[in-house]
Amino acid sequence: MQKLVLLRHGESLWNLENRFTGWTDVDLSQTGIEQARHAGKLLADNGFHFDLAFTSVLKRAIKTLHLALETMDQLYIPEEKSWHLNERFYGALQGLNKAETVQQYGEEQVHKWRRDPHEHPPVLEKTDPRFPGNDPRYKDLLPSELPVTENLSETMDRVLPYWTNKIIPALKQKKQVIIVAHGNSLRALIQYIDHLSDEEVTKLDIPTGTPWVYELNDDLSRIRHYYL
Amino acid sequence: MQKLVLLRHGESLWNLENRFTGWTDVDLSQTGIEQARHAGKLLADNGFHFDLAFTSVLKRAIKTLHLALETMDQLYIPEEKSWHLNERFYGALQGLNKAETVQQYGEEQVHKWRRDPHEHPPVLEKTDPRFPGNDPRYKDLLPSELPVTENLSETMDRVLPYWTNKIIPALKQKKQVIIVAHGNSLRALIQYIDHLSDEEVTKLDIPTGTPWVYELNDDLSRIRHYYL
Repeated sequence: MQKLVLLRHGESLWNLENRFTGWTDVDLSQTGIEQARHAGKLLADNGFHFDLAFTSVLKRAIKTLHLALETMDQLYIPEEKSWHLNERFYGALQGLNKAETVQQYGEEQVHKWRRDPHEHPPVLEKTDPRFPGNDPRYKDLLPSELPVTENLSETMDRVLPYWTNKIIPALKQKKQVIIVAHGNSLRALIQYIDHLSDEEVTKLDIPTGTPWVYELNDDLSRIRHYYL
Repeated sequence: MQKLVLLRHGESLWNLENRFTGWTDVDLSQTGIEQARHAGKLLADNGFHFDLAFTSVLKRAIKTLHLALETMDQLYIPEEKSWHLNERFYGALQGLNKAETVQQYGEEQVHKWRRDPHEHPPVLEKTDPRFPGNDPRYKDLLPSELPVTENLSETMDRVLPYWTNKIIPALKQKKQVIIVAHGNSLRALIQYIDHLSDEEVTKLDIPTGTPWVYELNDDLSRIRHYYL
């Protein structure tokens, strides 16, 4: 029986500061570092041996992966990083404090931005230094792929092709896979794998640094899932 | 003008204990960790931006790469790990103290094992727990690729196909490349790039954690090289 592990990165400095992060490349907090190592220990204690790792191009996910693999003594496995697994792009909200944003725009609007899968956060201007077109790591993206805002539905639209074209083929080859990503890119994946409705997925809160295990049939349908 | 950076991993715990390491997966010492970060700082201060990293499947090289890239804030670049870049396989000498080996076999023999490109260290039995066939990271290697001993010439024989098939194509695409590897796998590469004789390469000592920069012409011939 095949297993697939999803892992949300450990706590970041901006989780701690309660700021909208999105594609901002924020580092792990000390707690986040410890969560990543603890995730590695849980995985090792439960006998996981990975063949392949997928992660985003954001350091809080990459470092969580490295710390977990180091703890498991499996740093040698191949890893593939892609912007497709990045956190949802939060537009002009990136960097703003969540409580202050509530004061400014009202609780209802902020709740919509955070959880309504079709609601767009305010657009980020392309001249803004926060625009990904100004970051060398995104230099190979098509102009149409560079976001200025993203709702959860659009996050799913760019996560799923990666799932289909990169991750599914590895699973079909019976590779043991770990995906280290972000609250919303994982939410998109889980919505797809578990056929969740928009309403169900908005209620889904994925804790940082806690391995989520899928047991899969040969046809990659789900047997069950659980947190370690 | 294109640059290529070679970097030997930071000091390992066995460099410190003066033991033959080879494919043994020994960790960095605290000094090695600091050397790796310092290498990253030197590279960042000199304006290096990498597109692609190559390293071995041994943690002293992988961690050196990660620490350097983290210091440069370039953790997001793709990395490829391969046993082809591993340290020379030291056969039954792996784990032995160098000074004790000199006492047992004599200085001349040990010098030959270390520096004569055609001299084989004693063979490691396949039943030995140190044999790579017993390590899951080498499970995809052909039986003929699993070493029981290796002279420097044989190290070169498995480094060069990787250079030709993986690294050269990336350089031809004008990618900025860093290779983090080991004393003898880098020695083999440098012998090839710089057309060194066996005698010249035996005299070549590559310090740990010190970036070695090649400046290359369009045809990938060498303009010059220097340590940062």
